Amino acid sequence: MSSDAPEQPSTNQTEEPNVTPWTVSGEVNYDKLVNDFGSALIEPELLERIAKVTNKGAHHFLKRKIFYSHRDVNQLLDAYEVGRPFYLYTGRGPSSDSMHLGHLVPFMFTKYLQEAFNVPLVIQITDDEKFLWKNLSLEEVRKMAIENIKDIIACGFNEDNTFIFSDLDYIGHLYPTILKIEKATTASQAIGIFGFRKEDNIGKYSFPAIQAAPSFYSSFPHIFAEYEKKDLERKQKEAGQQKSSKKKSKVQNNVADNESTKADIFCLIPCAIDQDPYFRMTRDVAPRLQFQKPALLHSKFFPALQGSRTKMSSSDPNSGVFLTDTPKQIKDKINKHAFSGGQTTKELQEELGANLEVDVSYLYLTFFMEDDEELERIRVAYSTGKMLTGEIKKILIEVLQKIVKQHQERRALVTDEMVKKFMTPRAMDHLVPKESKPTPVKPLEPATQTNKQ
Amino acid sequence: MSSDAPEQPSTNQTEEPNVTPWTVSGEVNYDKLVNDFGSALIEPELLERIAKVTNKGAHHFLKRKIFYSHRDVNQLLDAYEVGRPFYLYTGRGPSSDSMHLGHLVPFMFTKYLQEAFNVPLVIQITDDEKFLWKNLSLEEVRKMAIENIKDIIACGFNEDNTFIFSDLDYIGHLYPTILKIEKATTASQAIGIFGFRKEDNIGKYSFPAIQAAPSFYSSFPHIFAEYEKKDLERKQKEAGQQKSSKKKSKVQNNVADNESTKADIFCLIPCAIDQDPYFRMTRDVAPRLQFQKPALLHSKFFPALQGSRTKMSSSDPNSGVFLTDTPKQIKDKINKHAFSGGQTTKELQEELGANLEVDVSYLYLTFFMEDDEELERIRVAYSTGKMLTGEIKKILIEVLQKIVKQHQERRALVTDEMVKKFMTPRAMDHLVPKESKPTPVKPLEPATQTNKQ
Repeated sequence: MSSDAPEQPSTNQTEEPNVTPWTVSGEVNYDKLVNDFGSALIEPELLERIAKVTNKGAHHFLKRKIFYSHRDVNQLLDAYEVGRPFYLYTGRGPSSDSMHLGHLVPFMFTKYLQEAFNVPLVIQITDDEKFLWKNLSLEEVRKMAIENIKDIIACGFNEDNTFIFSDLDYIGHLYPTILKIEKATTASQAIGIFGFRKEDNIGKYSFPAIQAAPSFYSSFPHIFAEYEKKDLERKQKEAGQQKSSKKKSKVQNNVADNESTKADIFCLIPCAIDQDPYFRMTRDVAPRLQFQKPALLHSKFFPALQGSRTKMSSSDPNSGVFLTDTPKQIKDKINKHAFSGGQTTKELQEELGANLEVDVSYLYLTFFMEDDEELERIRVAYSTGKMLTGEIKKILIEVLQKIVKQHQERRALVTDEMVKKFMTPRAMDHLVPKESKPTPVKPLEPATQTNKQ
Repeated sequence: MSSDAPEQPSTNQTEEPNVTPWTVSGEVNYDKLVNDFGSALIEPELLERIAKVTNKGAHHFLKRKIFYSHRDVNQLLDAYEVGRPFYLYTGRGPSSDSMHLGHLVPFMFTKYLQEAFNVPLVIQITDDEKFLWKNLSLEEVRKMAIENIKDIIACGFNEDNTFIFSDLDYIGHLYPTILKIEKATTASQAIGIFGFRKEDNIGKYSFPAIQAAPSFYSSFPHIFAEYEKKDLERKQKEAGQQKSSKKKSKVQNNVADNESTKADIFCLIPCAIDQDPYFRMTRDVAPRLQFQKPALLHSKFFPALQGSRTKMSSSDPNSGVFLTDTPKQIKDKINKHAFSGGQTTKELQEELGANLEVDVSYLYLTFFMEDDEELERIRVAYSTGKMLTGEIKKILIEVLQKIVKQHQERRALVTDEMVKKFMTPRAMDHLVPKESKPTPVKPLEPATQTNKQ
């Protein structure tokens, strides 16, 4: 997962928009991206369904269309409702030691999903990707990975059902799944999807398989051994019932008898939409490896202080609010650098109101102010000129100071011991759906996997 | 390491010879290969030097030019003579469960080198390569790997200084070194060296880094931590002396002060010459990663029973002598299938003698009859017509029956426990050269490695 791309729209006003996992430039047309990538907009019906299934209101990122696009989330919910297990997978490419507010977005949303569905969550730290793409040493990316992991833990993930892994540490466990994905993907396909060139290093060519691998449950045997066993028992039982009722079909028999039968364990990936190419590739490969295609929830990008067309850069501390900033730094950054959609004079503002589409303070509030009614009050007041830029900035400063302060407090409590715990491969059997709990009589052998892909 | 290539010259008489790690076809001109690849022939002086340095006669594979080409072995011996450590690295791509005689050649030679130099030996089992290149499942390549490892252990390697690893098991330890090699190698270079095409899977593109990695000591910290510490101490000490004697140069200071200084731990790779492309690439990369370039000893290919231009194939049991063959099978195969350079009648043979260059029985004896005098007696008698084909075949049958029987006896004693021991990463500190044993006073910190490659 690249951490930089979502915050790097270029300042070049005329260029064609370009969205890849490594570059985001030009004015991003989010609806067009959905068309280009072939995903689907999140419609109100899906929002309602998520709220209903989880018995929890939809997250404000969903209601405000910050997470706005998806793939196969309805199919995932169909499976969830009949007791099939799923897990969440997200990730981060470690970059600077200090993360900024934009980096929090996917983790805040993932935390909501984890709580709403009570399922295992795996978080991939692609330190290898950063090493292959950037002028950084292994020591440097390792160090960044640990710092970033502490920030991720500070988001409040439940140790009980969260496994965080760095590729450098965990590659041995991923490798069988990586090899299967590599074998099913030609260089030609990778070049087509990612635009690799001959001058690119050979590590880049195979990296997509490394980011794809956690989409398949075989990457986490310590978590899914019990899930797999139960689901294969269910499949076998269902196939048996169909046999005895003479309703069997050839296809059903193949599923039940085939040595390489996989369990129906689904995966949901919340990520910024620039990461979609990885998972388009993953979804293409999935059926050939007999895995379920991962479902996706895509977010828009988090804007820089200077506006959504400006590059947020860790070398320019004024381009964003960092999780290490003091209350005064936050106040100064917002007051001095947050691009305003308000009018140039008080009089004009009162007459015309602010342009919310480009106003960074308002945009930031849509991300970080949870209270819908208060946000609506601000929207109306500011856009109609009843609120001035200074006032909305004051509100934003308070919101961000609080979030950053709370984050810093939680992060101060994150110990090396906790990092070690989150990063230890371990069972999560307590989360196996009740419907597929082991039956005490006649346990079946788990099917052997001999898929040649 | 591909195990098949060396035994696969094609039967097509007219085609241009082609030698890659995956295909060997046409009439191989070994002198031309040395020219094309840019290695050097093993001259008599090098043979004598090896015999002298090791206090052991040169192996008959060397004397008979079966191992006939090399890279930088003189430099390796220079280093060895002044107490610098080196290790041996060879490997095998597991294929059929049952290995044949030709597969023994590199291991017999490596065993000789291990005994002659008393240095650590690492043996890579490229189960991942076989999976990526062949229509085999991971289960299948894993099973083959274990069977092959038992045959390798049966060659008589010393558990005390031999580490055997499968890529599938050990990849996590190799990964930091693999990443550095990947980052230093473009797709363009890999395509140039290995002829990869766009239809090839992405795993193939990065595999060369996996075969290259064991050439660098960083792949085996459990073996070389102590070696590295001692050698870096020596380097630092030498740099200090040079400083105090005011003879320091900028370059020397860079070596001594640079964080990413590597120890002078050398590597010697005995392999069939078709594997050279991997190590040409490795040697290109080495200086950029501040490692010593690996030295190489190249062998010619082992001929099929039907002659050196015929493909030896595990699907045709009559193409070679397998390590599982019974004495009767060996006798029948040699009598019926070993291509003869003898004349068609007794009378013609007595008049003209045999053509030794194409006579498989004689060629096999050059590999497996250790007694130089006896081989010379046979050479003279057979080539001058004093010996008939039936007689040389009888001698060969006895030699091979004995070798295969002894191998089978040793292999029967190889337990799963022994496999586990050979495959357990462990220290080999007892082999650290005496010159660089730890000094009890003032131990120095090992240099941190922050090479960005």
